[in-house]
Amino acid sequence: MQLHCIDCDSRYSISDFKYACSCGGLLEIEQDFKFLDSEYLKRKFEQRLSDRMTPYASGVWRYKELIFPELEDRFLITKNEGNTGLYDIERVNQYVGIKKIWLKSQSENPSGSFKDNGMVVAVSHGKSLGLDKFTCTSTGNTSSSLAMYSSLTNSQSYVFVPDKNISLNKVLQTISYGAKVIAFEGTYDQGIDFLEKYSGELGLYICNSINPFRIEGQKSIIYEIAQYLRWELPDWIVVPGGALSNVSALGKGLGDLYELGFINRLPRVAVVQAEGASPFHQMISKNKNELQPELQPKTVASALNIGNPPSWKKARNTLNATNGITVSVTDDEILNAKAVIDQSGIGCEPASASTVAGLKKLCESGQIHRDETAVCILTGNLLKDTEVLRQYHLECTENSLFANPLIKSKLNIESIKHL
Amino acid sequence: MQLHCIDCDSRYSISDFKYACSCGGLLEIEQDFKFLDSEYLKRKFEQRLSDRMTPYASGVWRYKELIFPELEDRFLITKNEGNTGLYDIERVNQYVGIKKIWLKSQSENPSGSFKDNGMVVAVSHGKSLGLDKFTCTSTGNTSSSLAMYSSLTNSQSYVFVPDKNISLNKVLQTISYGAKVIAFEGTYDQGIDFLEKYSGELGLYICNSINPFRIEGQKSIIYEIAQYLRWELPDWIVVPGGALSNVSALGKGLGDLYELGFINRLPRVAVVQAEGASPFHQMISKNKNELQPELQPKTVASALNIGNPPSWKKARNTLNATNGITVSVTDDEILNAKAVIDQSGIGCEPASASTVAGLKKLCESGQIHRDETAVCILTGNLLKDTEVLRQYHLECTENSLFANPLIKSKLNIESIKHL
Repeated sequence: MQLHCIDCDSRYSISDFKYACSCGGLLEIEQDFKFLDSEYLKRKFEQRLSDRMTPYASGVWRYKELIFPELEDRFLITKNEGNTGLYDIERVNQYVGIKKIWLKSQSENPSGSFKDNGMVVAVSHGKSLGLDKFTCTSTGNTSSSLAMYSSLTNSQSYVFVPDKNISLNKVLQTISYGAKVIAFEGTYDQGIDFLEKYSGELGLYICNSINPFRIEGQKSIIYEIAQYLRWELPDWIVVPGGALSNVSALGKGLGDLYELGFINRLPRVAVVQAEGASPFHQMISKNKNELQPELQPKTVASALNIGNPPSWKKARNTLNATNGITVSVTDDEILNAKAVIDQSGIGCEPASASTVAGLKKLCESGQIHRDETAVCILTGNLLKDTEVLRQYHLECTENSLFANPLIKSKLNIESIKHL
Repeated sequence: MQLHCIDCDSRYSISDFKYACSCGGLLEIEQDFKFLDSEYLKRKFEQRLSDRMTPYASGVWRYKELIFPELEDRFLITKNEGNTGLYDIERVNQYVGIKKIWLKSQSENPSGSFKDNGMVVAVSHGKSLGLDKFTCTSTGNTSSSLAMYSSLTNSQSYVFVPDKNISLNKVLQTISYGAKVIAFEGTYDQGIDFLEKYSGELGLYICNSINPFRIEGQKSIIYEIAQYLRWELPDWIVVPGGALSNVSALGKGLGDLYELGFINRLPRVAVVQAEGASPFHQMISKNKNELQPELQPKTVASALNIGNPPSWKKARNTLNATNGITVSVTDDEILNAKAVIDQSGIGCEPASASTVAGLKKLCESGQIHRDETAVCILTGNLLKDTEVLRQYHLECTENSLFANPLIKSKLNIESIKHL
């Protein structure tokens, strides 16, 4: 296990842990699976499914040998993350117009989003270094997940957010888990620069998406999908594209499974961005070599509202390795797909629904065939954004195709019979 | 399997399903475990732990033989309910002042509350009768759970709520899952009467807490706790007391485990009510034979804000069978216990925290010894009630002992170092 710079190819020992290469490039973790026995591991992963009270009951640590083999057991923290449902819902298949979709409901994670899969590994790593102060710059799912795991391990989390336009509603979960939420004068970029410069002096362990251990943990999502489907993946894996670290993790996880012979063919990856925040899709579709940041990203799907995704190079590698594609969808398309997912009894936050909206668009354009199969990864919980629910259902506009407003009625059989 | 009236002892065949006895009494389901082989079942329950893609992966259907043995497999619906974490958190132990507490985090259920365990069985039963319209009167966890399972099975749910003082925020989850939420002119009691009178004519299957199949499903919570702890339960099981159906289910589940020899001794049960809505605690502590409804119940813990709990007789039976006790706690005690649970990285809604607050009070009064052990059942998710979080942390009063307000700071090392 070592750190590898995806830009200049430098390599560092894991014991010299750092967040970025001296060239400024992103680091990834390189593992050597040469000496692993796939059949033995497969049996082990199977046996651990029946665990409930050990860290190996986790849908992340179940695959520890592929995620963080060196970590001593005493540093394994867990909160029952992963182990999320994989649902085949006829109504969603029909809405998209494709043979079969599996919805992987990461919203069932303990803090309500897929971030838990990666965060549990980053915080465990930080603890193994002897640190007990954790930090990130985020108001969303990342900060809630960080706050939860920090508190679970009697550590303190520090969440830095710019004081302009801070939405208190979005940080309530993070505050309640006990994070110190610091509203500072400045921009996100200034916050990140500050942390990178002073984290050592302040004894802070940084859990932003550049942390390569988060990527290692997030690989478990595709491992779990593959295991649940008896190591036969569908034709497509569809993911939302915000910071793009999930795309990076997906590519890395698929590469692992293929290298180890757990799967015989690689599925193709489709990355869906919101139209108002689609710099990655723009780059890929226009065949550019460099990402042009979107300076004023704007989408209702707050987890996708990212104009300058740090992990775009890793995500591009994933597309290259899997013959992947990208697509963008409008906010209305996202919200209507979300209503279909919610009304199928699954439920998700807006960003998650971009996967179903994007898959529908790709089927309609013929880029994906209707007799193919797909997994859509639903990243966050329906309860994460209730304001969107209120607007869609109660203040519904003509674009809210599936609005379900409150009904006022007298309590008599004639009135009720006709509802 | 038959229906049994807990008041007049009448019995009915399950094929003549009804919601109440002709004497007006509550019905419970009676099962005959005489011919069951406990050792065989124990092995079966163990094997099913590794299931992921069959209905037996459910933390409810895993115990189908004890819950609804007659139900054909084709009627089993599931959404990965149960399988929730059981956590031992040192900070909570210290706060309460007891040797060991397990927190059973039912908030990890798919709709975010323990109601899923019972609802999945009621909706499966309704479907097996050929019904596809489900109903309840509730604005809380019950209605969200009902709406989710109804939609999951392509059925329609109808949720009746009085139009006075309806909090739209509380029904957003239910609306988004696709329930028709009907605000009617009248009171809850009128709603219930209406449903009992006309459900047959309207083809509606009633999923209020009087539905005895919900109780059968909720028994799985204590089964799962027992199985995770290798069939050795702690000294006490602590539950919040609202409608009291959870107390009834707990007593019934404990009785099953004891009768089958899965456990060798019965733990004692402690029921915690909020001071402003504590008719059951009043009845028990004053040694009365009849419950005196609280006409104007008032507590911040909305799931406990019930003045006339329908299941009080069944709950009393549970106390009698387990040498149980009751206690009441103030809203401040609930909110401070909630802050401790949240800041331990677990998180819950206010009603859930009454268990930890009540256990603390019972330890302080000496009714529970400090070297005993307990399970506290956390019933609902932290995200269910964000208004309470806002008030406690951001508008904190002197009673908010663990308030965690937003911090404003300049971004320089001196300022940050001292946070």
